[in-house]
Amino acid sequence: MAGIVLEVGADADLGLVHNALRGCGVWGRTLGGALGSHSGARVVVLEGHSKEVNLGVLLDIPGVLNVYRGSSPHPKVDELRNRNIWVGSALIGGDETPLLMAGPCSVESEEQIHQCAAMVKRCGGRVLRGGAFKPRTSPYAFSGAGKEALGWLRDAALAHDLGVVTEVMSEREVDSVARAADLIQVGSRNMQNFALLGAVGAQKKPVLLKRGMAASVEEWLLAGEHLLAAGCSSVIFCERGIRSFDDTTRNLLDLSAVALLRHVHGLRVVVDPSHGTGRRDLIAPMSKAALAAGADGLLLEVHVNPAEAVSDGPQALRESELENLSQDLGLLLPT
Amino acid sequence: MAGIVLEVGADADLGLVHNALRGCGVWGRTLGGALGSHSGARVVVLEGHSKEVNLGVLLDIPGVLNVYRGSSPHPKVDELRNRNIWVGSALIGGDETPLLMAGPCSVESEEQIHQCAAMVKRCGGRVLRGGAFKPRTSPYAFSGAGKEALGWLRDAALAHDLGVVTEVMSEREVDSVARAADLIQVGSRNMQNFALLGAVGAQKKPVLLKRGMAASVEEWLLAGEHLLAAGCSSVIFCERGIRSFDDTTRNLLDLSAVALLRHVHGLRVVVDPSHGTGRRDLIAPMSKAALAAGADGLLLEVHVNPAEAVSDGPQALRESELENLSQDLGLLLPT
Amino acid sequence: MAGIVLEVGADADLGLVHNALRGCGVWGRTLGGALGSHSGARVVVLEGHSKEVNLGVLLDIPGVLNVYRGSSPHPKVDELRNRNIWVGSALIGGDETPLLMAGPCSVESEEQIHQCAAMVKRCGGRVLRGGAFKPRTSPYAFSGAGKEALGWLRDAALAHDLGVVTEVMSEREVDSVARAADLIQVGSRNMQNFALLGAVGAQKKPVLLKRGMAASVEEWLLAGEHLLAAGCSSVIFCERGIRSFDDTTRNLLDLSAVALLRHVHGLRVVVDPSHGTGRRDLIAPMSKAALAAGADGLLLEVHVNPAEAVSDGPQALRESELENLSQDLGLLLPT
Amino acid sequence: MAGIVLEVGADADLGLVHNALRGCGVWGRTLGGALGSHSGARVVVLEGHSKEVNLGVLLDIPGVLNVYRGSSPHPKVDELRNRNIWVGSALIGGDETPLLMAGPCSVESEEQIHQCAAMVKRCGGRVLRGGAFKPRTSPYAFSGAGKEALGWLRDAALAHDLGVVTEVMSEREVDSVARAADLIQVGSRNMQNFALLGAVGAQKKPVLLKRGMAASVEEWLLAGEHLLAAGCSSVIFCERGIRSFDDTTRNLLDLSAVALLRHVHGLRVVVDPSHGTGRRDLIAPMSKAALAAGADGLLLEVHVNPAEAVSDGPQALRESELENLSQDLGLLLPT
Repeated sequence: MAGIVLEVGADADLGLVHNALRGCGVWGRTLGGALGSHSGARVVVLEGHSKEVNLGVLLDIPGVLNVYRGSSPHPKVDELRNRNIWVGSALIGGDETPLLMAGPCSVESEEQIHQCAAMVKRCGGRVLRGGAFKPRTSPYAFSGAGKEALGWLRDAALAHDLGVVTEVMSEREVDSVARAADLIQVGSRNMQNFALLGAVGAQKKPVLLKRGMAASVEEWLLAGEHLLAAGCSSVIFCERGIRSFDDTTRNLLDLSAVALLRHVHGLRVVVDPSHGTGRRDLIAPMSKAALAAGADGLLLEVHVNPAEAVSDGPQALRESELENLSQDLGLLLPT
Repeated sequence: MAGIVLEVGADADLGLVHNALRGCGVWGRTLGGALGSHSGARVVVLEGHSKEVNLGVLLDIPGVLNVYRGSSPHPKVDELRNRNIWVGSALIGGDETPLLMAGPCSVESEEQIHQCAAMVKRCGGRVLRGGAFKPRTSPYAFSGAGKEALGWLRDAALAHDLGVVTEVMSEREVDSVARAADLIQVGSRNMQNFALLGAVGAQKKPVLLKRGMAASVEEWLLAGEHLLAAGCSSVIFCERGIRSFDDTTRNLLDLSAVALLRHVHGLRVVVDPSHGTGRRDLIAPMSKAALAAGADGLLLEVHVNPAEAVSDGPQALRESELENLSQDLGLLLPT
Repeated sequence: MAGIVLEVGADADLGLVHNALRGCGVWGRTLGGALGSHSGARVVVLEGHSKEVNLGVLLDIPGVLNVYRGSSPHPKVDELRNRNIWVGSALIGGDETPLLMAGPCSVESEEQIHQCAAMVKRCGGRVLRGGAFKPRTSPYAFSGAGKEALGWLRDAALAHDLGVVTEVMSEREVDSVARAADLIQVGSRNMQNFALLGAVGAQKKPVLLKRGMAASVEEWLLAGEHLLAAGCSSVIFCERGIRSFDDTTRNLLDLSAVALLRHVHGLRVVVDPSHGTGRRDLIAPMSKAALAAGADGLLLEVHVNPAEAVSDGPQALRESELENLSQDLGLLLPT
Repeated sequence: MAGIVLEVGADADLGLVHNALRGCGVWGRTLGGALGSHSGARVVVLEGHSKEVNLGVLLDIPGVLNVYRGSSPHPKVDELRNRNIWVGSALIGGDETPLLMAGPCSVESEEQIHQCAAMVKRCGGRVLRGGAFKPRTSPYAFSGAGKEALGWLRDAALAHDLGVVTEVMSEREVDSVARAADLIQVGSRNMQNFALLGAVGAQKKPVLLKRGMAASVEEWLLAGEHLLAAGCSSVIFCERGIRSFDDTTRNLLDLSAVALLRHVHGLRVVVDPSHGTGRRDLIAPMSKAALAAGADGLLLEVHVNPAEAVSDGPQALRESELENLSQDLGLLLPT
């Protein structure tokens, strides 16, 4: 996004202007002269990595007459800068320790989700995840236990003093999901389902917005703007891997986007390394990398017995693995 | 590439300016106002699809004070516009019928390449292709019969009055390949091997430049500029599929890039649907599509007996298939 | 998808087996031997391009003991093979001339859509397109005239004896859209909105299913299976460009996927070169290329006055341009 | 890569086999039955994430008759597992602190590289980087000071007791570069320049192999195999970002590939966050993330005065920034 244009006077030394720009950490490209310009002024366009430049500094460069910058296309997202967000009784952001949200891919039974909730609690988690409605590529695959599972999930979380995050897939289920969840999840495949974003936003609750598989960072921010424009109270952005040409890992976890959202935009970001890598053996290192890049929390898949999970077993952590990771991350005292 | 910037007077009606731009087939985005500008002028930046806009027309829009455009980064490529190119005794471009270049993936033996040359000739081909040096992902795979095969290839082509196109992979082999070839091929993996581009360009012969697997159109054009800056007489661009997230076909054949190079840049383009799709059953429809999109020619893999090819057999056409395709394309009279 | 596995006897000559496979147009890879196998048998796995191989032929290869193949994950899509589909009074498929569906990006007013309908009719179109509900990346952009526009669209089509295709974005609007449309469009961003697919499928009408921006061919077929499993009468697949690393064109039109769906899977496919390229000057060549690759029809954006279009003006054809294209495609007699 | 196939007896319970597989952390897919198999046996194919499965464990699953696995295509890379590598007097791997390699993008002058070397040494670096030959997309951009700069680089490193890593771009310069460098760098654009890989490997020195912009992990490992097969003593793999559809950051840094190479393949990996992100403000968080993911070292661009760098200034760290980062990483005691 070449959002900044500088007009440089006819007499100014363009070389000095470019040096000054490089000193600010940005590249410029000079346009024109020849045919198109009447006044002799020249124009310098700043390239993509220049977003956070202070306009006043640019105006002070000798020879620069005017500086033009586009207004932000997502003003409500910009207002979230450095805002802490409550998820149930847990706070995300600030000086808090990273927020651990964990649970099974699917809520399979009342017993299973209670076991998982106990395990998440023992391991230092603050929020329970679990899918009652599951998006599945094939119409013939298990697509969740449905509305009943929302109740099981809520009860299990209450019993162990955890918050609840769960996904909504249909406009018709927004009310039910909003009643059960402290944090409403919008999944990757629905990041640009604008009807759903509108309905979810109208609930005025916090939303976990997963990045679409082929969504640019700008489109992701604009999806957040859709939610906020519809009334949503706050948005936590969740990176879960994007699609690439290489299928060595299930998706390509884009931690630079995490660093960008956290450090440059000041937003709250969590990372889902379970979907991001699709491999249990990479979840611990990528969880650590996510926090090092700036993530405020993690969304992890765990299972009491991954061998019997009805979906995504190979990427779910066992209790011992989650416990070790939590200790490494300082969420749990070593035993 | 935001290559065009318009300065609009303080009093002008921006809505009318934008309408006028849309009439020219381009989108504009207005920057600035607020903080940065002293004069009250506004700036409109034109988006990516606006390359071929006439500056004079833009200057005539009421309210537009100045128009700034960047100079072309590839002036020598621009000079190739609509130039016809000889490949041996065949001419590519103009009102000529499409140029058919065909042959085996690898030159395997003297006998095999003579049989292939005869087959190519019978089917309306004008140029014989065949690899003496083959780039292979694994160091343990067959990597071509080497220098000796260059002689076999040259002789087979001469015997059947065909031109020769063959790939060079090493700076050390540029001389030998240039002696054997009417058209020197630079492969996808070497599109940005700048040392090789320099050595090949210095031969002052026509070059077939395959697009890199992840090369943007702009990078492809600039690789052509590298060749021309080094002395190359002319460049034919060859689209052979780029890398994408979907491996349903071996690569993703980008025919829009072909239409763009041919119809907007005026360059000579051929398409290699053999590597582009990796499937024999898609070569005929994609060959027709390539010519419909604007390609000046085709580069096809054929084999006397695909079942015995040492490389790429599944994407090689048999003689009967090539013959049918040539008839469909009007390169051969129906029998 | 390595969907085929051959078990080869301990005494068989693997070289001959591989030659025979190459003769069938497929590559095989031999696994095992060493540690894992008790019986001495070997296994050959067939690579991705081998989908359409006849099992009987493979069983006849000397030395092959068994052949294992996975069942199709989309049986209902497979049943559509070579089925012609009615869209209003127009038939898509068979020996019919290509089906031209055209109209404005957005239905802006009653007058505009009537003018467009007349223009589409004059130019040989059989189906009128136009958006009443528009997916927009920004919540602040024009998102369609809504329900009222559905009536305008229907009336304009009726007045000029055209069918109607229009997009549905929300489960709540499925009924209204289904009443107005002969062909219900599901957009790229909703290709994996499974709640919407279910609601649309239940209407038991034909559906135009656009490919998601990062959807593999397999995921696209499975989205079609979702529709058919929910009751949909038939699916026309619409290629409109996928996302790539190169933004020279707005999207990357994947005509190999079109050839694959048409020639290998026997499905009905239309191409949208307007969104596929985003540039008016590439629409004609890419329309021709689409039909050459095997498309059964085209979905085009046209506008009476592109300069005043509220959305997507730069990719809309003027009447004279549509007329020329229709003549070139044989849909209209030359004047 | 479906590299593992299990043959399951006619009488075995497939459900139990699949449960057992999930317990091992892998997914299986059952093929066949119906038409193709004579014996009644079934075949289960393991999906991509199953690389590190122990064959013996699979053979012990009740009902499994045979297990077939492909041999590794890169045996020499496999032999590097957990091997520590000397770069000058610095050791990479083992219990060592992470190896910091830093320096300017281009060696611009004798004075500049001496200043940089002093700065790198003060900040805890052990190896000096700097380009004498620079790959440039445009033929008209500064392409390095050439052979003379190799001497400056060597002298500056010696004067400050640092090792040297520098890139080679041409077969003709391999000897000169090998004399100047402790670690020969092969750049992204040349990862599949097989002629160069052969010439570099023949030097029998350690090589830093950057990943190609569109290279899969498997192709990267095979490029390492090319080097080793040609005689190279050892390979350090360098992740520097791959190409994606999103240009928010300059490239997409793939830290999951880093975790995979380090933790699963046991290879030595360094990360270049300077090219990986293209933004100075993201280099510190992404450096920390890289080490957390498992990287053994970092390759950083620094400059005494980024405003005056002839190339890549916006991604170069200043001394104060490098010093802070080194302290954060424990490479330098806090002052």
